[in-house]
This record gives sequence, structure tokens and C-alpha cells, in this order.
Amino acid sequence: MELLKERILKDGNVKAGNVLKVDSFLNHQIDITLLNEIGKEFKRLFSDVRITKILTIEASGIGITCITAQYFNVPVVFAKKSQSKNIDGDVFLSQVKSYTHGMTYDVIVSKKFISRDDNILIIDDFLANGCALSGLADIVRDSGASLAGAGIVIEKGFQEGGKNLRAQGIRVESLAIIESMDENTGVIFSN
Amino acid sequence: MELLKERILKDGNVKAGNVLKVDSFLNHQIDITLLNEIGKEFKRLFSDVRITKILTIEASGIGITCITAQYFNVPVVFAKKSQSKNIDGDVFLSQVKSYTHGMTYDVIVSKKFISRDDNILIIDDFLANGCALSGLADIVRDSGASLAGAGIVIEKGFQEGGKNLRAQGIRVESLAIIESMDENTGVIFSN
Repeated sequence: MELLKERILKDGNVKAGNVLKVDSFLNHQIDITLLNEIGKEFKRLFSDVRITKILTIEASGIGITCITAQYFNVPVVFAKKSQSKNIDGDVFLSQVKSYTHGMTYDVIVSKKFISRDDNILIIDDFLANGCALSGLADIVRDSGASLAGAGIVIEKGFQEGGKNLRAQGIRVESLAIIESMDENTGVIFSN
Repeated sequence: MELLKERILKDGNVKAGNVLKVDSFLNHQIDITLLNEIGKEFKRLFSDVRITKILTIEASGIGITCITAQYFNVPVVFAKKSQSKNIDGDVFLSQVKSYTHGMTYDVIVSKKFISRDDNILIIDDFLANGCALSGLADIVRDSGASLAGAGIVIEKGFQEGGKNLRAQGIRVESLAIIESMDENTGVIFSN
């Protein structure tokens, strides 16, 4: 998606440790006009499948997913990190390791909101090592629902997540795939 | 907002401890069609002021705020809970007590994204004791920006938050104000 790649080149910042900061438009401040274009692109990419629900994970996936869901005309479910008092006990649970925060946390979705009749699209902002996406895919599998695929805004193609998930037969559509990035040379895309 | 109140009566569940579960349409599964009506209503209520940016707090405020921002045609900023490795040091910080989770956490917004030229609308899903909203208002004040007001989806009118914030001169517009709720009698609105 050219508009997104141009924006990453213009406003993204590469930091040490393979961190790409896109907090001025994607995951702290959010450019809603860009999100609408992202949503349309996900709809175009998954126009061949009937989606019944879009699943994401808190927090930075929620805005992208809600805007995208308007183009699919389906509800959103966002998975919660760690047990909350406001969640019933009857949940699908998966454990996810976060390299960003250096911890492992529980990811939960109430069993009320995904059923075997659903055809789920997963949406998230980043795909790097694939832990979060893999946890969400586990939840979809546990629920008996079908997994139509995953729509990712930015994939770090130099990490293993995308390769591993595609090898498992999961359809992954990434709007921008980063081949390499470096504080000096910046971001180079492979798609 | 009648559509919202009808939905709360139909799909909301009152639990012990003054907990209102609206997780089937607002803060776990999200009904995007309802969110669009909520966004239009916030725009109608704040149509008399020029808003430059909408501020919310992760996680459940983000979806509502992104959908609402489409009607204001402005960017969203969502405050983050606790220090993240991906946030620069240069942040506005406020401490917020969460009764739901029984803890106090830091709420932070990068200084890059709110300036004294901004006229900020705060949006959140719930207003009860007002701690989260008060923390966001502190951040707006620290930034030197103007605070146009706060748009709340569901206010627990029997708790002190709304009263205290209005007494401070903050304009609070709540789409549904709950006068009382009880596991047996259900939810009674005061607006």
C-alpha cells in the first residue's frame, strides 16, 4: 500500500533494537484518514471471503480494526491482555510473549463472542515474531470458528513471524513489509 | 441517547458491586453501527466548539474515539497506561487509580502530540469515580491546551465523578446517565 509506505518513510522513526516508531500516525496519535484507507485496502484484499467478525488485541489494534470493520459491516472483538474483573470466567485463553514489554501475558476472549459459525479475520498493527497473532489464531482454533486470515498493517519481514504463520497455512496479508531497517539507512520495503 | 439506553436495557448486565457489563456491544465485542450513532451524537453535542484533537485512554476508549473522530475530522491521541519501551521520555504523566483493577497506574501522553494550540475533546466509555477522566484533564492542563469538554458514553450518575468534574468547570456530556442499578431491578436512567 503505497500511501502507507510513503507515510512510514516520511514520519516513521527507526530506533535501536529494530524498533520502528509510528506513534505519530498509527499507535499513539492516530490519523483517522489514513486508517480509513487502510480499512478499504483490507476490504479489497479480503473481498473474496465472507467475514463474520474481526478479531484484534488491545490496545493499538483496536482503532484500526474498528475503522476497518465499517467496510466489512461486521462486529469487532478485541482480545484482552490479562484477566480483568469484568470478564466472566468462561473464556478462550492463550499465552503470548511480548518482546516489547519483556513479559508473558494471558490473552483472553469471552466464549460468548466467537462461535463455530464464525469466519474470523484477525487484524493487527504489527507482525514481527508473530507471538500475538499466533495467540489469536490459537483462540480462533479453540473456538471452532474458521480463520479467514490475518490483515497486518506493518510486517517486519526480517523477523520470523510472517514466515512461520504462512507455513502453518494461515493467509497473512501485510500492507507494508519491511525488508530491513537501520538507524542510518532508514526503512527498506520488500513489497 | 435513546438508542444507547435501549441497548443497555436489552443487552447490558448488572453484576454485584455496581458493575454494568456491556461487553457484548461496547468494550469487548463492539457493535460498529452503534458506535457510528454514538460518534454522530458526540458531534451534535459538541458542534458549537472547534475541536482540534480527541484524547482518550487505552483500551476500551479507543474504538469509540476513532469512530467518533471521523465526524470531527481530527486526529485521535490515546493515552497509554504505564511506561512502555516504545514511548520517548518526553511525556505528560498523570497517575490514575483504577477501582476496577485495584491498582494505581501511570497515564502518559507524548508531549509531541498535544500543544497549547489544541482544543481537546476527551472521550471515554465510562465515567464513575472520575479518576481516569480527571487524569486526562490534568494532562490537557499540563500541556497548555484548552479542554473543550468530555464526551462519555455511560455515566454512573450515582457515583461522584461527574459531579466533581462539573464542579471544576469541565463540560461533561454523557449519552446515558444511570441513576441507579441493581441485580434485581436492573438499570434506571436519569436522563
